[in-house]
Amino acid sequence: MSRGLFITLEGLDGSGKTTQIKRLSGWMQKRGVVPVITRQPGGTAAGDRIRELLLDSRSVGLAPMTEMALMFGDRAQAIAEVIEPALAAGDTVLCDRFTDSTEAYQGGGRELGSELVLEMHRLICGGLQPDLTLLLLPPLDKSLERARRRNDRVAEKNGPNEGRFESEQDAFFRRVWEKYREIARRDSERVVAIEGDLSIDDVHEQIVEALSERRVIAHSR
Amino acid sequence: MSRGLFITLEGLDGSGKTTQIKRLSGWMQKRGVVPVITRQPGGTAAGDRIRELLLDSRSVGLAPMTEMALMFGDRAQAIAEVIEPALAAGDTVLCDRFTDSTEAYQGGGRELGSELVLEMHRLICGGLQPDLTLLLLPPLDKSLERARRRNDRVAEKNGPNEGRFESEQDAFFRRVWEKYREIARRDSERVVAIEGDLSIDDVHEQIVEALSERRVIAHSR
Repeated sequence: MSRGLFITLEGLDGSGKTTQIKRLSGWMQKRGVVPVITRQPGGTAAGDRIRELLLDSRSVGLAPMTEMALMFGDRAQAIAEVIEPALAAGDTVLCDRFTDSTEAYQGGGRELGSELVLEMHRLICGGLQPDLTLLLLPPLDKSLERARRRNDRVAEKNGPNEGRFESEQDAFFRRVWEKYREIARRDSERVVAIEGDLSIDDVHEQIVEALSERRVIAHSR
Repeated sequence: MSRGLFITLEGLDGSGKTTQIKRLSGWMQKRGVVPVITRQPGGTAAGDRIRELLLDSRSVGLAPMTEMALMFGDRAQAIAEVIEPALAAGDTVLCDRFTDSTEAYQGGGRELGSELVLEMHRLICGGLQPDLTLLLLPPLDKSLERARRRNDRVAEKNGPNEGRFESEQDAFFRRVWEKYREIARRDSERVVAIEGDLSIDDVHEQIVEALSERRVIAHSR
Protein backbone atom coordinates (compact mmCIF):
# COMPACT_ATOMS: atom_id res chain seq x y z
CA MET A 1 0.00 0.00 0.00
CA SER A 2 1.37 3.43 -0.85
CA ARG A 3 1.80 5.95 1.91
CA GLY A 4 -0.97 8.51 2.39
CA LEU A 5 -0.69 12.24 1.78
CA PHE A 6 -0.04 14.65 4.60
CA ILE A 7 -1.69 18.02 4.01
CA THR A 8 -1.59 20.86 6.53
CA LEU A 9 -3.66 24.04 6.74
CA GLU A 10 -1.98 27.08 8.21
CA GLY A 11 -2.85 30.67 8.96
CA LEU A 12 -3.71 33.14 11.69
CA ASP A 13 -6.74 32.66 13.90
CA GLY A 14 -9.71 33.86 11.88
CA SER A 15 -8.13 33.05 8.53
CA GLY A 16 -10.83 30.50 7.77
CA LYS A 17 -8.88 27.26 8.19
CA THR A 18 -11.74 25.36 9.84
CA THR A 19 -14.23 26.34 7.14
CA GLN A 20 -11.81 25.40 4.38
CA ILE A 21 -10.95 22.04 5.94
CA LYS A 22 -14.66 21.18 5.97
CA ARG A 23 -15.03 22.27 2.33
CA LEU A 24 -11.91 20.41 1.27
CA SER A 25 -12.97 17.28 3.12
CA GLY A 26 -16.36 17.38 1.39
CA TRP A 27 -14.67 17.88 -1.97
CA MET A 28 -12.38 14.91 -1.35
CA GLN A 29 -15.16 12.67 -0.18
CA LYS A 30 -17.08 13.31 -3.40
CA ARG A 31 -13.96 11.95 -5.11
CA GLY A 32 -13.85 8.83 -2.95
CA VAL A 33 -11.15 9.98 -0.52
CA VAL A 34 -12.16 10.06 3.13
CA PRO A 35 -9.48 12.13 4.87
CA VAL A 36 -8.40 11.78 8.48
CA ILE A 37 -8.92 15.25 9.97
CA THR A 38 -6.98 16.39 13.01
CA ARG A 39 -5.72 19.58 14.59
CA GLN A 40 -2.87 20.92 16.69
CA PRO A 41 -2.74 21.47 19.53
CA GLY A 42 -5.31 18.80 20.43
CA GLY A 43 -6.51 15.89 18.35
CA THR A 44 -5.59 13.26 20.97
CA ALA A 45 -6.73 12.78 24.56
CA ALA A 46 -3.36 13.96 25.88
CA GLY A 47 -3.26 16.70 23.26
CA ASP A 48 -6.62 18.07 24.36
CA ARG A 49 -5.25 18.44 27.87
CA ILE A 50 -2.12 20.14 26.58
CA ARG A 51 -4.37 22.45 24.55
CA GLU A 52 -6.39 23.29 27.67
CA LEU A 53 -3.20 24.08 29.52
CA LEU A 54 -2.01 26.33 26.71
CA LEU A 55 -5.30 28.22 26.49
CA ASP A 56 -6.19 28.31 30.16
CA SER A 57 -5.96 31.65 31.87
CA ARG A 58 -4.07 30.02 34.72
CA SER A 59 -1.25 29.59 32.24
CA VAL A 60 -1.07 33.20 31.15
CA GLY A 61 2.35 33.20 32.77
CA LEU A 62 3.68 30.40 30.53
CA ALA A 63 7.20 31.13 29.35
CA PRO A 64 7.54 31.17 25.52
CA MET A 65 9.94 28.23 25.78
CA THR A 66 7.35 26.25 27.78
CA GLU A 67 4.71 27.07 25.20
CA MET A 68 6.96 25.78 22.43
CA ALA A 69 7.90 22.57 24.27
CA LEU A 70 4.23 21.86 24.99
CA MET A 71 3.35 22.41 21.33
CA PHE A 72 5.93 19.81 20.37
CA GLY A 73 4.73 17.45 23.13
CA ASP A 74 1.28 17.67 21.61
CA ARG A 75 2.73 17.19 18.12
CA ALA A 76 4.74 14.12 19.15
CA GLN A 77 1.58 12.51 20.49
CA ALA A 78 -0.44 13.41 17.38
CA ILE A 79 2.26 11.94 15.14
CA ALA A 80 2.49 8.70 17.13
CA GLU A 81 -1.23 8.25 17.71
CA VAL A 82 -2.92 9.71 14.63
CA ILE A 83 -0.75 10.99 11.78
CA GLU A 84 1.82 8.22 11.26
CA PRO A 85 -0.66 5.34 11.60
CA ALA A 86 -3.00 7.06 9.10
CA LEU A 87 -0.25 7.80 6.58
CA ALA A 88 1.10 4.26 6.96
CA ALA A 89 -2.39 2.94 6.23
CA GLY A 90 -2.49 4.99 3.03
CA ASP A 91 -4.94 7.59 4.31
CA THR A 92 -4.87 11.28 3.48
CA VAL A 93 -4.39 13.40 6.60
CA LEU A 94 -5.72 16.97 6.81
CA CYS A 95 -4.13 18.67 9.78
CA ASP A 96 -5.22 22.06 11.12
CA ARG A 97 -1.81 23.59 12.04
CA PHE A 98 1.57 21.87 12.29
CA THR A 99 5.15 23.02 12.85
CA ASP A 100 4.69 26.13 10.66
CA SER A 101 2.31 27.41 13.34
CA THR A 102 4.93 26.92 16.02
CA GLU A 103 7.49 28.68 13.86
CA ALA A 104 5.07 31.55 13.17
CA TYR A 105 3.61 31.94 16.69
CA GLN A 106 6.45 30.96 19.02
CA GLY A 107 9.35 31.54 16.62
CA GLY A 108 7.95 34.78 15.15
CA GLY A 109 5.24 36.06 17.49
CA ARG A 110 7.07 35.19 20.71
CA GLU A 111 10.41 35.93 19.08
CA LEU A 112 12.11 32.60 19.88
CA GLY A 113 13.39 32.55 16.30
CA SER A 114 13.01 30.04 13.48
CA GLU A 115 16.22 28.14 14.10
CA LEU A 116 15.20 26.90 17.54
CA VAL A 117 11.77 25.78 16.33
CA LEU A 118 13.22 24.01 13.31
CA GLU A 119 15.79 22.21 15.48
CA MET A 120 13.00 21.11 17.81
CA HIS A 121 11.07 19.89 14.79
CA ARG A 122 14.05 17.85 13.64
CA LEU A 123 14.47 16.29 17.10
CA ILE A 124 10.81 15.62 17.87
CA CYS A 125 9.24 15.01 14.46
CA GLY A 126 12.19 13.42 12.70
CA GLY A 127 11.81 13.64 8.96
CA LEU A 128 8.06 14.17 8.89
CA GLN A 129 7.07 17.07 6.63
CA PRO A 130 3.72 17.81 5.02
CA ASP A 131 3.45 16.91 1.34
CA LEU A 132 1.53 20.14 0.89
CA THR A 133 0.81 23.09 3.15
CA LEU A 134 -2.06 25.44 2.37
CA LEU A 135 -1.36 28.78 3.97
CA LEU A 136 -4.40 31.04 4.22
CA LEU A 137 -3.10 34.56 4.42
CA PRO A 138 -5.72 37.31 4.13
CA PRO A 139 -4.30 40.87 4.27
CA LEU A 140 -2.96 41.67 7.72
CA ASP A 141 -5.64 44.26 8.56
CA LYS A 142 -8.41 41.77 7.67
CA SER A 143 -6.68 39.06 9.74
CA LEU A 144 -6.44 41.33 12.75
CA GLU A 145 -10.06 42.35 12.45
CA ARG A 146 -11.27 38.74 12.18
CA ALA A 147 -9.06 37.61 15.05
CA ARG A 148 -10.50 40.38 17.24
CA ARG A 149 -14.09 39.54 16.31
CA ARG A 150 -13.45 35.86 16.99
CA ASN A 151 -11.86 36.70 20.31
CA ASP A 152 -14.92 38.71 21.34
CA ARG A 153 -17.24 35.83 20.44
CA VAL A 154 -15.11 33.24 22.25
CA ALA A 155 -14.81 35.44 25.32
CA GLU A 156 -18.60 35.96 25.32
CA LYS A 157 -19.20 32.21 25.21
CA ASN A 158 -16.46 30.78 27.44
CA GLY A 159 -15.26 33.70 29.49
CA PRO A 160 -12.00 35.38 28.69
CA ASN A 161 -9.84 32.24 29.01
CA GLU A 162 -10.19 30.71 25.57
CA GLY A 163 -9.33 34.01 24.03
CA ARG A 164 -5.79 34.05 25.32
CA PHE A 165 -3.93 33.80 22.05
CA GLU A 166 -6.44 36.04 20.33
CA SER A 167 -6.12 38.81 22.86
CA GLU A 168 -2.45 39.38 22.18
CA GLN A 169 -1.37 42.69 20.83
CA ASP A 170 -1.53 43.55 17.16
CA ALA A 171 2.27 43.67 17.08
CA PHE A 172 2.33 39.99 17.98
CA PHE A 173 -0.01 39.08 15.14
CA ARG A 174 2.00 41.19 12.74
CA ARG A 175 5.12 39.17 13.61
CA VAL A 176 3.18 35.91 13.14
CA TRP A 177 1.84 37.08 9.79
CA GLU A 178 5.28 38.12 8.60
CA LYS A 179 6.83 34.84 9.71
CA TYR A 180 4.20 32.93 7.76
CA ARG A 181 5.12 34.91 4.63
CA GLU A 182 8.78 34.18 5.25
CA ILE A 183 8.05 30.44 5.54
CA ALA A 184 6.05 30.51 2.30
CA ARG A 185 8.93 32.21 0.46
CA ARG A 186 11.52 29.86 1.93
CA ASP A 187 9.60 26.59 1.48
CA SER A 188 7.85 27.46 -1.77
CA GLU A 189 7.99 23.85 -2.95
CA ARG A 190 5.85 22.73 -0.04
CA VAL A 191 3.79 25.80 0.87
CA VAL A 192 1.06 27.34 -1.26
CA ALA A 193 0.13 30.76 0.10
CA ILE A 194 -3.41 31.81 -0.67
CA GLU A 195 -3.30 35.57 -0.24
CA GLY A 196 -5.66 38.47 -0.68
CA ASP A 197 -9.13 39.35 0.54
CA LEU A 198 -10.96 36.40 -1.01
CA SER A 199 -14.40 34.89 -0.53
CA ILE A 200 -14.76 31.41 1.00
CA ASP A 201 -15.57 30.05 -2.46
CA ASP A 202 -12.52 31.68 -4.01
CA VAL A 203 -10.21 30.29 -1.34
CA HIS A 204 -11.72 26.83 -1.80
CA GLU A 205 -11.19 27.13 -5.55
CA GLN A 206 -7.53 28.00 -5.07
CA ILE A 207 -7.05 25.09 -2.65
CA VAL A 208 -8.50 22.68 -5.19
CA GLU A 209 -6.25 24.16 -7.86
CA ALA A 210 -3.19 23.77 -5.64
CA LEU A 211 -4.00 20.12 -5.03
CA SER A 212 -4.57 19.58 -8.70
CA GLU A 213 -1.45 21.41 -9.90
CA ARG A 214 0.70 19.42 -7.55
CA ARG A 215 -1.13 16.26 -8.53
CA VAL A 216 -1.78 15.66 -4.88
CA ILE A 217 -5.21 14.42 -5.83
CA ALA A 218 -6.49 13.89 -9.37
CA HIS A 219 -8.61 16.94 -10.14
CA SER A 220 -11.55 15.22 -11.73
CA ARG A 221 -14.32 17.82 -11.79
CA MET B 1 25.50 40.04 44.31
CA SER B 2 27.08 36.71 43.39
CA ARG B 3 24.95 34.12 41.65
CA GLY B 4 23.39 31.41 43.82
CA LEU B 5 24.26 27.72 43.73
CA PHE B 6 22.19 25.25 41.80
CA ILE B 7 22.14 21.81 43.44
CA THR B 8 20.09 18.90 42.09
CA LEU B 9 19.14 15.61 43.74
CA GLU B 10 18.77 12.61 41.49
CA GLY B 11 17.90 8.96 41.80
CA LEU B 12 15.20 6.38 41.22
CA ASP B 13 11.82 6.61 42.92
CA GLY B 14 12.31 5.35 46.43
CA SER B 15 15.98 6.34 46.60
CA GLY B 16 15.28 8.78 49.44
CA LYS B 17 15.63 12.09 47.60
CA THR B 18 12.75 13.79 49.43
CA THR B 19 14.06 12.79 52.87
CA GLN B 20 17.56 13.93 52.01
CA ILE B 21 16.39 17.27 50.61
CA LYS B 22 14.62 17.95 53.94
CA ARG B 23 17.74 16.97 55.91
CA LEU B 24 20.01 19.02 53.68
CA SER B 25 17.72 22.02 53.86
CA GLY B 26 17.72 21.81 57.67
CA TRP B 27 21.50 21.53 57.71
CA MET B 28 21.82 24.58 55.45
CA GLN B 29 19.40 26.64 57.48
CA LYS B 30 21.42 26.03 60.62
CA ARG B 31 24.29 27.59 58.69
CA GLY B 32 22.25 30.62 57.69
CA VAL B 33 21.40 29.53 54.15
CA VAL B 34 17.70 29.26 53.35
CA PRO B 35 17.50 27.28 50.12
CA VAL B 36 14.76 27.55 47.50
CA ILE B 37 13.38 24.01 47.18
CA THR B 38 11.64 22.87 44.02
CA ARG B 39 10.98 19.70 42.06
CA GLN B 40 10.51 18.43 38.54
CA PRO B 41 8.08 17.78 37.12
CA GLY B 42 5.97 20.27 39.06
CA GLY B 43 7.11 23.19 41.15
CA THR B 44 5.08 25.78 39.22
CA ALA B 45 1.33 26.08 38.59
CA ALA B 46 1.77 25.03 34.96
CA GLY B 47 4.30 22.39 35.99
CA ASP B 48 1.85 20.82 38.42
CA ARG B 49 -0.61 20.42 35.58
CA ILE B 50 2.05 18.92 33.34
CA ARG B 51 2.93 16.56 36.19
CA GLU B 52 -0.71 15.50 36.53
CA LEU B 53 -0.87 14.81 32.83
CA LEU B 54 2.30 12.72 33.00
CA LEU B 55 1.09 10.69 35.95
CA ASP B 56 -2.56 10.43 35.05
CA SER B 57 -3.82 7.05 33.95
CA ARG B 58 -5.56 8.67 30.99
CA SER B 59 -2.09 9.34 29.64
CA VAL B 60 -0.83 5.78 29.88
CA GLY B 61 -0.71 5.90 26.12
CA LEU B 62 1.74 8.83 26.07
CA ALA B 63 4.43 8.35 23.46
CA PRO B 64 7.99 8.44 24.92
CA MET B 65 8.71 11.50 22.76
CA THR B 66 5.63 13.26 24.20
CA GLU B 67 6.75 12.41 27.70
CA MET B 68 10.17 13.90 27.01
CA ALA B 69 8.81 17.08 25.43
CA LEU B 70 6.44 17.58 28.38
CA MET B 71 9.31 17.11 30.83
CA PHE B 72 11.20 19.86 29.06
CA GLY B 73 8.09 22.06 28.94
CA ASP B 74 7.88 21.71 32.70
CA ARG B 75 11.61 22.39 33.02
CA ALA B 76 11.46 25.52 30.86
CA GLN B 77 8.74 26.92 33.09
CA ALA B 78 10.62 26.04 36.29
CA ILE B 79 13.77 27.71 34.97
CA ALA B 80 11.92 30.88 33.95
CA GLU B 81 9.69 31.12 37.00
CA VAL B 82 11.72 29.67 39.89
CA ILE B 83 15.30 28.61 39.23
CA GLU B 84 16.78 31.52 37.27
CA PRO B 85 15.20 34.26 39.41
CA ALA B 86 16.44 32.52 42.58
CA LEU B 87 19.98 32.01 41.27
CA ALA B 88 20.07 35.59 40.00
CA ALA B 89 19.05 36.78 43.48
CA GLY B 90 21.96 34.82 44.98
CA ASP B 91 19.82 32.06 46.49
CA THR B 92 20.79 28.39 46.69
CA VAL B 93 18.36 26.20 44.77
CA LEU B 94 17.75 22.57 45.75
CA CYS B 95 15.94 20.84 42.91
CA ASP B 96 14.43 17.37 43.16
CA ARG B 97 15.25 15.98 39.67
CA PHE B 98 16.49 17.87 36.61
CA THR B 99 17.70 16.88 33.12
CA ASP B 100 19.60 13.83 34.45
CA SER B 101 16.19 12.33 35.30
CA THR B 102 14.99 12.86 31.75
CA GLU B 103 18.17 11.31 30.42
CA ALA B 104 17.83 8.35 32.80
CA TYR B 105 14.06 7.76 32.46
CA GLN B 106 13.25 8.80 28.90
CA GLY B 107 16.73 8.45 27.41
CA GLY B 108 17.58 5.20 29.25
CA GLY B 109 14.32 3.71 30.52
CA ARG B 110 12.25 4.56 27.43
CA GLU B 111 15.27 4.05 25.19
CA LEU B 112 15.16 7.42 23.41
CA GLY B 113 18.93 7.67 23.94
CA SER B 114 21.11 10.25 25.65
CA GLU B 115 21.94 12.29 22.58
CA LEU B 116 18.36 13.37 21.93
CA VAL B 117 17.79 14.34 25.57
CA LEU B 118 21.04 16.29 25.73
CA GLU B 119 20.21 18.14 22.50
CA MET B 120 16.81 19.02 23.94
CA HIS B 121 18.53 20.25 27.08
CA ARG B 122 20.81 22.47 25.03
CA LEU B 123 17.85 23.92 23.10
CA ILE B 124 15.47 24.39 26.01
CA CYS B 125 17.73 25.03 29.01
CA GLY B 126 20.57 26.81 27.24
CA GLY B 127 23.72 26.73 29.30
CA LEU B 128 22.07 25.99 32.64
CA GLN B 129 23.79 23.12 34.47
CA PRO B 130 23.71 22.27 38.16
CA ASP B 131 26.80 23.27 40.14
CA LEU B 132 26.49 19.97 41.95
CA THR B 133 24.31 16.91 41.45
CA LEU B 134 23.81 14.45 44.29
CA LEU B 135 22.89 11.09 42.83
CA LEU B 136 21.40 8.67 45.34
CA LEU B 137 22.00 5.22 43.99
CA PRO B 138 21.22 2.36 46.37
CA PRO B 139 21.92 -1.13 44.95
CA LEU B 140 19.53 -1.98 42.14
CA ASP B 141 17.68 -4.71 44.06
CA LYS B 142 17.06 -2.33 46.99
CA SER B 143 15.89 0.37 44.59
CA LEU B 144 13.44 -1.95 42.92
CA GLU B 145 12.09 -3.16 46.24
CA ARG B 146 11.59 0.39 47.54
CA ALA B 147 9.99 1.52 44.29
CA ARG B 148 7.52 -1.38 44.48
CA ARG B 149 6.66 -0.68 48.12
CA ARG B 150 6.18 2.99 47.35
CA ASN B 151 4.00 2.14 44.39
CA ASP B 152 1.78 -0.04 46.58
CA ARG B 153 1.36 2.75 49.14
CA VAL B 154 0.61 5.37 46.50
CA ALA B 155 -1.86 3.09 44.76
CA GLU B 156 -3.58 2.40 48.10
CA LYS B 157 -3.94 6.10 48.79
CA ASN B 158 -4.73 7.58 45.38
CA GLY B 159 -5.85 4.66 43.29
CA PRO B 160 -3.56 3.20 40.68
CA ASN B 161 -3.04 6.44 38.74
CA GLU B 162 -0.22 8.06 40.67
CA GLY B 163 1.75 4.87 40.55
CA ARG B 164 2.20 4.93 36.83
CA PHE B 165 5.95 5.34 36.63
CA GLU B 166 6.46 2.99 39.56
CA SER B 167 4.49 0.19 37.99
CA GLU B 168 6.82 -0.18 35.04
CA GLN B 169 8.69 -3.39 34.66
CA ASP B 170 11.93 -4.11 36.46
CA ALA B 171 13.74 -4.04 33.12
CA PHE B 172 12.77 -0.39 32.75
CA PHE B 173 14.16 0.50 36.18
CA ARG B 174 17.33 -1.42 35.44
CA ARG B 175 17.87 0.73 32.33
CA VAL B 176 17.23 3.90 34.36
CA TRP B 177 19.64 2.78 37.06
CA GLU B 178 22.33 1.95 34.51
CA LYS B 179 21.88 5.27 32.72
CA TYR B 180 22.31 7.10 36.03
CA ARG B 181 25.61 5.29 36.60
CA GLU B 182 26.70 6.18 33.08
CA ILE B 183 25.90 9.87 33.71
CA ALA B 184 27.87 9.80 36.98
CA ARG B 185 30.92 8.33 35.23
CA ARG B 186 30.68 10.75 32.31
CA ASP B 187 30.02 13.93 34.34
CA SER B 188 32.14 13.08 37.36
CA GLU B 189 33.06 16.73 37.89
CA ARG B 190 29.44 17.65 38.49
CA VAL B 191 27.84 14.45 39.78
CA VAL B 192 28.58 12.84 43.15
CA ALA B 193 27.13 9.33 43.23
CA ILE B 194 26.24 8.12 46.71
CA GLU B 195 26.12 4.37 46.30
CA GLY B 196 25.56 1.37 48.51
CA ASP B 197 22.92 0.29 50.99
CA LEU B 198 23.30 3.20 53.41
CA SER B 199 21.24 4.52 56.29
CA ILE B 200 19.53 7.92 56.02
CA ASP B 201 22.18 9.34 58.37
CA ASP B 202 25.03 7.93 56.33
CA VAL B 203 23.65 9.34 53.08
CA HIS B 204 23.18 12.74 54.73
CA GLU B 205 26.77 12.62 55.97
CA GLN B 206 28.04 11.88 52.47
CA ILE B 207 25.97 14.72 51.03
CA VAL B 208 27.42 17.14 53.55
CA GLU B 209 30.92 15.89 52.74
CA ALA B 210 30.32 16.32 49.02
CA LEU B 211 29.22 19.92 49.57
CA SER B 212 32.20 20.55 51.79
CA GLU B 213 34.78 18.94 49.53
CA ARG B 214 33.55 20.90 46.57
CA ARG B 215 33.43 23.99 48.75
CA VAL B 216 29.85 24.46 47.64
CA ILE B 217 29.06 25.56 51.16
CA ALA B 218 31.55 26.15 53.97
CA HIS B 219 31.43 23.05 56.12
CA SER B 220 31.38 24.67 59.54
CA ARG B 221 30.36 21.95 61.96
